[in-house]
Amino acid sequence: MKCYSIEEVVDQKVKTAFFMVGDTKIELLESTSPEGPIGKFVEKKGPGMHHIAFAVDNATEALKTVEERGIRLIDKSSRKGAEGLDIGFLHPKSTYGVLTELCSK
Amino acid sequence: MKCYSIEEVVDQKVKTAFFMVGDTKIELLESTSPEGPIGKFVEKKGPGMHHIAFAVDNATEALKTVEERGIRLIDKSSRKGAEGLDIGFLHPKSTYGVLTELCSK
Repeated sequence: MKCYSIEEVVDQKVKTAFFMVGDTKIELLESTSPEGPIGKFVEKKGPGMHHIAFAVDNATEALKTVEERGIRLIDKSSRKGAEGLDIGFLHPKSTYGVLTELCSK
Repeated sequence: MKCYSIEEVVDQKVKTAFFMVGDTKIELLESTSPEGPIGKFVEKKGPGMHHIAFAVDNATEALKTVEERGIRLIDKSSRKGAEGLDIGFLHPKSTYGVLTELCSK
């Protein structure tokens, strides 16, 4: 398993490193500030698994669809994430405590 | 995403449901007893992500290899898990809090 990309996502206060396993990406996250979402997560829960992401055709439309089905959203519409993807998060209160991301190219 | 199998793993006090996404499996776990490992996890941390698993050629050998590299093991040798796979867990103290499983056919 080889790291194929390292990227800093400034507005998320995080540095990411990507690994490919089959058609699945493993993303390692390192906080660049205790005030960022990852910094707060590690402070509160310690290191561990942060979220799971599913690739979809269109993140904005997929967010709308899941919201119509009663899922609470963190992101009402998609925004830019690592690797230039359109991303949006569902609220873990709606997904059995599993922070879930939808992303598309 | 369709559930293709539901199975009870009696000695782990857990019921599992499997979904396939690309070449990745999502395994939902439901505790069948508060005394089991999943029952205790949910009691302590609430619902959420429990572990990540990597398919390897030979779980027993892979466990030996990672132990030689200084990783602490929960399972010194592999045992039978869901779907008849040989499985073994690494200790989350050695894997940044991420409970990690190796499994092979």
